Amino acid sequence: MGTTQLEPVSEPKYWHLRTVLSEALDSEFTVGEILPNERDLAARFGVARATLRQALEQLELEGRLQRRRGVGTTVAPPRVGVAVGTEQHAWPGAADDAWQPVDSTLLIPPAAVADALETGRDEAVHTVRRSRMSHGQPVGAELLYIPRSSVPDLSAIDAPSGAARARAVLRELQRRELDGQDNAVELGSARADDAKELDRLPGAPVLVVTTRFLSEGATAALSVATYRADTCRLTFGASGGVEIHHGPERRAS
Amino acid sequence: MGTTQLEPVSEPKYWHLRTVLSEALDSEFTVGEILPNERDLAARFGVARATLRQALEQLELEGRLQRRRGVGTTVAPPRVGVAVGTEQHAWPGAADDAWQPVDSTLLIPPAAVADALETGRDEAVHTVRRSRMSHGQPVGAELLYIPRSSVPDLSAIDAPSGAARARAVLRELQRRELDGQDNAVELGSARADDAKELDRLPGAPVLVVTTRFLSEGATAALSVATYRADTCRLTFGASGGVEIHHGPERRAS
Repeated sequence: MGTTQLEPVSEPKYWHLRTVLSEALDSEFTVGEILPNERDLAARFGVARATLRQALEQLELEGRLQRRRGVGTTVAPPRVGVAVGTEQHAWPGAADDAWQPVDSTLLIPPAAVADALETGRDEAVHTVRRSRMSHGQPVGAELLYIPRSSVPDLSAIDAPSGAARARAVLRELQRRELDGQDNAVELGSARADDAKELDRLPGAPVLVVTTRFLSEGATAALSVATYRADTCRLTFGASGGVEIHHGPERRAS
Repeated sequence: MGTTQLEPVSEPKYWHLRTVLSEALDSEFTVGEILPNERDLAARFGVARATLRQALEQLELEGRLQRRRGVGTTVAPPRVGVAVGTEQHAWPGAADDAWQPVDSTLLIPPAAVADALETGRDEAVHTVRRSRMSHGQPVGAELLYIPRSSVPDLSAIDAPSGAARARAVLRELQRRELDGQDNAVELGSARADDAKELDRLPGAPVLVVTTRFLSEGATAALSVATYRADTCRLTFGASGGVEIHHGPERRAS
């Protein structure tokens, strides 16, 4: 027949297909290779197109496949490990900071942010937009909120906005001593501005890392950073995190 | 007209609708409330059902909505903060361990795990399956891989499997000194066994935390833990992590 028939199982059909497809990716395909089209794949595995699509979506969620308009579905390279541990995610603006300042302005933050900063709800704070690259690809987009009380000597900034203003704010922030930080990670979807920086469509799955920077017993800055969930693995810990790749083909790249 | 017409914008329609819906959730709905059905919602916002569904999927991804079969779409409570920082995610089996042992067996791990453990690819290792609850709900499912060299004195176990065997393996592991650990977090989909423990369907989005436990210069154990991405926010850091909730309605619960 030339088809790979699936045996009947109790688990959902799309899930079984995902497992079979995952094994096929390991054994038959290499990173970057374009998969056959949906019709041919559905025929090969003897499943409906809808079932096939569900299985492909699963594998995309797991970072095994990439779907790109005009290209098709390709086998994804292993995810990039991005260090967000306490040592690497240093005091914003420090010498070893992995983030690049992009823009800065003074605005009234969302109520939830104002509450976390313990500023008043109608009090403007400095915002700094930054981006982070890895292997030449954008991996993270960040919005940093800095209460005016954290940078009290920032009286006259030459630049009203842009990277120059961002650098001036961070330079002032660096005068303070960082006492500690804590991070929270959750699943989210990319907002329009973050999506643009990450080279994705709005709503793409992202890992949202919220970091509170503590100084002199108060929250001196709050960072909301979004990382591409399809291409990034966030690592915490001094040694940069463990790597577990799927199958030999993925490890080979 | 009784409808809330969307103004034309350059961002994708589903994304604009998501923002409008998000604001409506804050101002008009409370946690646990059931949303009107899709037809009524699509009519109210003057959009196609497909657009509405995309926007609802976004909000589900962000943890704002829950879709439950037989119930409909409800407004989700704020995500539960689950501590996975170095202090809380302690040496497995320690007195303050948040995980409950469920089962244990000896098996040959996936090749990628064997490589990370630096055991041979056809060498059996101890596995311990554990679960984690928070507020009476399952939040995490873990598979712990322990090379036999980490528990050399585990010669005769009375129980061939089950929680009793798991506890015996962990008791032996506790004889070793934990030198350090590192974590990696990435997006994944729940495998069938994890999904069952998490009370989800296979393929549901999960946050996968891989932890390597180091002892005497080697990887003494490897943990692959999956957390429900819809209900959990993972916190790293001593103080348990920052909390940022959406809008006043969500904070009120």
